[in-house]
Amino acid sequence: MKSFTNVKDLGNLNDAIKEALEIKQNRFAYKHIGENKTLLMVFFNSSLRTRLSTQKAGMNLGMNTIVLDVNQGAWKLETERGVIMDGDKPEHLLEAIPVMGCYCDVIGVRSFAQFESKTFDYEETILNQFIRYSGKPVFSMEAATGHPLQAFADLITIEEHKKSERPKVVLTWAPHPRALPQAVPNSFADFMNEANVEFVITHPKGYELDEKFVRGAKVEYCQEKAFEGADFIYAKNWAAYQDPNYGKILSKDRSWTVDSAKMNLTNNAYFMHCLPVRRNMIVSDDVIESPQSLVIPEAANREISAQTVLKRLLQ
Amino acid sequence: MKSFTNVKDLGNLNDAIKEALEIKQNRFAYKHIGENKTLLMVFFNSSLRTRLSTQKAGMNLGMNTIVLDVNQGAWKLETERGVIMDGDKPEHLLEAIPVMGCYCDVIGVRSFAQFESKTFDYEETILNQFIRYSGKPVFSMEAATGHPLQAFADLITIEEHKKSERPKVVLTWAPHPRALPQAVPNSFADFMNEANVEFVITHPKGYELDEKFVRGAKVEYCQEKAFEGADFIYAKNWAAYQDPNYGKILSKDRSWTVDSAKMNLTNNAYFMHCLPVRRNMIVSDDVIESPQSLVIPEAANREISAQTVLKRLLQ
Amino acid sequence: MKSFTNVKDLGNLNDAIKEALEIKQNRFAYKHIGENKTLLMVFFNSSLRTRLSTQKAGMNLGMNTIVLDVNQGAWKLETERGVIMDGDKPEHLLEAIPVMGCYCDVIGVRSFAQFESKTFDYEETILNQFIRYSGKPVFSMEAATGHPLQAFADLITIEEHKKSERPKVVLTWAPHPRALPQAVPNSFADFMNEANVEFVITHPKGYELDEKFVRGAKVEYCQEKAFEGADFIYAKNWAAYQDPNYGKILSKDRSWTVDSAKMNLTNNAYFMHCLPVRRNMIVSDDVIESPQSLVIPEAANREISAQTVLKRLLQ
Repeated sequence: MKSFTNVKDLGNLNDAIKEALEIKQNRFAYKHIGENKTLLMVFFNSSLRTRLSTQKAGMNLGMNTIVLDVNQGAWKLETERGVIMDGDKPEHLLEAIPVMGCYCDVIGVRSFAQFESKTFDYEETILNQFIRYSGKPVFSMEAATGHPLQAFADLITIEEHKKSERPKVVLTWAPHPRALPQAVPNSFADFMNEANVEFVITHPKGYELDEKFVRGAKVEYCQEKAFEGADFIYAKNWAAYQDPNYGKILSKDRSWTVDSAKMNLTNNAYFMHCLPVRRNMIVSDDVIESPQSLVIPEAANREISAQTVLKRLLQ
Repeated sequence: MKSFTNVKDLGNLNDAIKEALEIKQNRFAYKHIGENKTLLMVFFNSSLRTRLSTQKAGMNLGMNTIVLDVNQGAWKLETERGVIMDGDKPEHLLEAIPVMGCYCDVIGVRSFAQFESKTFDYEETILNQFIRYSGKPVFSMEAATGHPLQAFADLITIEEHKKSERPKVVLTWAPHPRALPQAVPNSFADFMNEANVEFVITHPKGYELDEKFVRGAKVEYCQEKAFEGADFIYAKNWAAYQDPNYGKILSKDRSWTVDSAKMNLTNNAYFMHCLPVRRNMIVSDDVIESPQSLVIPEAANREISAQTVLKRLLQ
Repeated sequence: MKSFTNVKDLGNLNDAIKEALEIKQNRFAYKHIGENKTLLMVFFNSSLRTRLSTQKAGMNLGMNTIVLDVNQGAWKLETERGVIMDGDKPEHLLEAIPVMGCYCDVIGVRSFAQFESKTFDYEETILNQFIRYSGKPVFSMEAATGHPLQAFADLITIEEHKKSERPKVVLTWAPHPRALPQAVPNSFADFMNEANVEFVITHPKGYELDEKFVRGAKVEYCQEKAFEGADFIYAKNWAAYQDPNYGKILSKDRSWTVDSAKMNLTNNAYFMHCLPVRRNMIVSDDVIESPQSLVIPEAANREISAQTVLKRLLQ
């Protein structure tokens, strides 16, 4: 594996899940693999789970880990050639990225969608510059259009909790006060479309995601109908993707909040969310605190998905 | 030991001191104990000594160490259930704390008194939420009402320097331009009350500390009288504890500054302070620079107190 | 070696280069040297290359590494004795520095020139306080008047690429929108004056550097003339050193920008710069992207210069 940005990079998904579950059984069994290897984690945006779980994953593998917080305000990178750099950007990415590549063996990058240009975001400009110029294996720690370490952890969690061969998994939009990127729902769809699940997406009209990730999955605009018979409810907010509303909030309709009345429509479904979550916007207190809530096991599996990816990037 | 927040958690204090002094003799002798164990240090407030000494202590024990700086302004945690989280707090502590617990084996927490609610501070709301929800051993790296790693380091330092079986130790208030928490004097009293010392507290009227920590120790309002025959002078500022003045500055009287004239009243006492210290407010230049000043040895013993506590939490 | 601040601290320069090149061949061969040793890196200013390369160098040697970012705004150190510390500086360097020394075996310090007082800057007040009060070996990670780890990396890079016994090396001033310290050109001159090179400095009148570093090296005010026959062009901006213009910008003349027309005057010279670099101010896109550009190999050698220095400080 040369880089990790989407489900395809894992190859056979059953093998990947199997490998992840083996790692979870004995996470220090591969400590020799990372000896004298350095993991550099570059954050253009803040992070709690990704920072801690990926660092832990690297250390489980015996790697040296370095965290670099790029203060978005202070360290602006020029991206265009030919510019006279006499303004507020002191360094060009064409230097900064290969330099970072000099001091490590694997690079993780977090760089959120900026919602200034749909093309800039959906071409994954920043992440692809790291892949192209760093000279080292690169993995996404949530980029503009995807969060594959999260989706892989979600898949592992579903595998651990599913009660039937092919469970029904519903990705539901839910309201939020701020405009959020589509990275998490994109990657979740990317993974579910390759997994052995019945996958349904539900959201208000206008919130359609990029077909590159949806790939013909069933979209049901009635949330109640979508929830019927579901084994897993995966809630998430996202801002609009479709033009001309890219990055905009079209609805804050709290009738889409996941509560126990809606969960009662399901097949005693598990509740999932990537965190951080706004309670009583995305989900009610009682649902997230119920025994069916998997939000903490999902977070715990972030260490496992990261370690599986790092192990493969090192091998 | 399941958590470390006060002197009682150490059990027999002579045994703890003995263990600390053994560790100091050979601080790498227990490197196997922390193998494949991760120390997570969570800072809600800034830190110099605690950050460096605790990290060093963890590494001495062979632990992986992760430092998480929680920017107080950026990452506000909702603490109430039932709230519709549509404001400036993006995550609930009920998720954030168990998530942090997923990625480590021991958690240190720094969270100062906020002086907004005496009840919130003195119930140690934040620290206790970590103890209750993280699922991992928790230790205080200075919480709202105590700084036990500091007080333990102070006790070790007194043990190393005492010239009599039962030295006289005086905790004296001193002036400061800003309102400071009572964490350090509380824990110092907590430890001195269990140690084999003659313990006296001196401060202006109105600065009485919580009886939970003072526990009937002698309070002498005349600083000069308190200093007579003292073997150790421990200076510290704190804001008022008693209602209705909780968190307020009642005096900036520089006649309480510890200077050489006052030190001359003592039994050639050692001078102690937890640092950082405001010179010529708390203490004069000549006293802090004198051969009797123990401020640097105290700071050095922070590594030892932290390592002793971590060793016990791991065992 | 007790500290590392300039070329003299390396002793015989050929031996140092030889040692560096050996380390580069097998950078994990000395992992036992740093076992149970702690590297503390103290940053008063931001950093990309120095932070990553020095941390990597310490880890290559098996050291525990701790990075301390001293937020310049938040953590002001009082430097004068006798001051009543009732203002915005909560700690005195006379305490802070020995405390930092308690928790490590080697200290790296980054503290840029502040351009407020030439005396304060050129006496290396901050760096020398660390040397005097920390009690531990100290090395510069760029101080007010020098950046010796950079200059040592530059020398290694020249050694690796030189095509004649005694190449011509030209340090050229180039324009920049902000006032920059003289640390890099000072150290580059300091090293080149001891190396087996023909060293020429070129800059507009008024940009003369401190004679302590120039030491009689040839200064040629005509950039074109300086470039004739050059084997290495080392570009850098700096603000004026000479009184009464210390720290001022005297010129932003873009006719000094290094472009391919000027490089054509040389002996097919290599282009060098310490980075970060402002393209089309300091150097044109085509020159920095040409096969003759050594900016990335220079950056990569920062790991080697740091590791060589750390190895010597530990031995």
